[in-house]
Amino acid sequence: MYSLQFTAESSSNGMLQREFTMGDVPGVLWSPTAGVAGRAPLVLMAHGGGNHKKHPAMAGRAQRVVTGCGFHVAVIDAPGHGDRPRSAHDEEEIAELYRARAAGEPEGPVVVRYNDHLAQLAVPEYRATLDALQELPEIGADGPVGFWGINMGTAIGVPLVAIEPRITAAVFGQHWPDVLAEKAKRISIPVEFAMQWDDEHISREESLALFDAFASKEKSLHVNSGRHKELPRFEADSAVRFFARHLRAVP
Amino acid sequence: MYSLQFTAESSSNGMLQREFTMGDVPGVLWSPTAGVAGRAPLVLMAHGGGNHKKHPAMAGRAQRVVTGCGFHVAVIDAPGHGDRPRSAHDEEEIAELYRARAAGEPEGPVVVRYNDHLAQLAVPEYRATLDALQELPEIGADGPVGFWGINMGTAIGVPLVAIEPRITAAVFGQHWPDVLAEKAKRISIPVEFAMQWDDEHISREESLALFDAFASKEKSLHVNSGRHKELPRFEADSAVRFFARHLRAVP
Repeated sequence: MYSLQFTAESSSNGMLQREFTMGDVPGVLWSPTAGVAGRAPLVLMAHGGGNHKKHPAMAGRAQRVVTGCGFHVAVIDAPGHGDRPRSAHDEEEIAELYRARAAGEPEGPVVVRYNDHLAQLAVPEYRATLDALQELPEIGADGPVGFWGINMGTAIGVPLVAIEPRITAAVFGQHWPDVLAEKAKRISIPVEFAMQWDDEHISREESLALFDAFASKEKSLHVNSGRHKELPRFEADSAVRFFARHLRAVP
Repeated sequence: MYSLQFTAESSSNGMLQREFTMGDVPGVLWSPTAGVAGRAPLVLMAHGGGNHKKHPAMAGRAQRVVTGCGFHVAVIDAPGHGDRPRSAHDEEEIAELYRARAAGEPEGPVVVRYNDHLAQLAVPEYRATLDALQELPEIGADGPVGFWGINMGTAIGVPLVAIEPRITAAVFGQHWPDVLAEKAKRISIPVEFAMQWDDEHISREESLALFDAFASKEKSLHVNSGRHKELPRFEADSAVRFFARHLRAVP
């Protein structure tokens, strides 16, 4: 298997940013600049469709987790995203998504199918990245691990968390139940799930069905008024508090 | 109209507790012991059915608001609750509730009807209490006012907020839409609403219908797994952050 290679390092606002590659998969690891002497929990994040590992939504969430909790955060580019090349299949599916949008057709069927394809590629990449990150002394092999991904990040995260016992708390949201509900039934860790009450792409019934599918004894759904892209910024703060409650540092 | 009379005063944990009466309605006002020189926002709370103004749920929420935000908090006993006498009608309705429970019948119809009756009495009491509290220099006539009530507190709060323009942010939850949905349609201030996903008394459809009825452009629904009485403690912290966001101190 490929090993993790750090390729660049910088720091600002109390956060150390280290870019890395795992074979041909580029990623970024954010860590507290203070207090990295001991081990700290890790939150794996996955970005949304059309975005990338260092999108402001990712860097902003990482900043909250790193400075708010003192945890590490890692994200990798999804296949066909960020610094990774698009395949012919990626181009076809993206063209089909744009065509559906332009025609005023629902984009759900295309997004569900394409995200499922990407998740099948990304899940083993996330597991290999987790293997490598756990070899770092500041993370360690037995420390707490969380997952945080909305939109396409949920399409990748639900199948990942369903088969990855090292992840013990997860924040998801804003996706369809078609492919994910069956996998969500195998997830029993604490979950916080976000949906938009006036989402123009995902119906209320679809969001509620996906939330309902999680087998977790402890799960929370946060519904906010507004359309698909209007998820309030304060939900990021809520997710950080969720991880602070559920991921405890190794003594 | 009756005036507000303070009857007892004590303080602990940074919180000043002043009991008062408004005519024959007993209440309690909690305030920060530090920094009462200027004015601060007020959160009116209403307790749940069978409880009273100083129930630990009220005192605990007040402590969070007072020390977390520096705001004032006031609660009055609902009719037939706490230090107030029960009428023959109260006794009849309580007996009917116990009978329905013992018979395994749904308690919703009794609670909805009885809470509506109590709300009709309590709403003018809350408005008169607010009039009096706003005469205190540490609150003032034009300061921000919030409302926080779950269960029977929602049955009182929704009709109160629907007609009380001085209240500009409200936390509700865990009640039926039968009587309240029509009143909720007249509420357009920011609302945070809590429901339990496995509530044995209030169906998911009923809770979602009441949340949906609020006309508020900005509203959030917090759903948690668990039964009626298992509302997580962290929802109280969320409510405090909600008030911190929406109630601004008068300069």
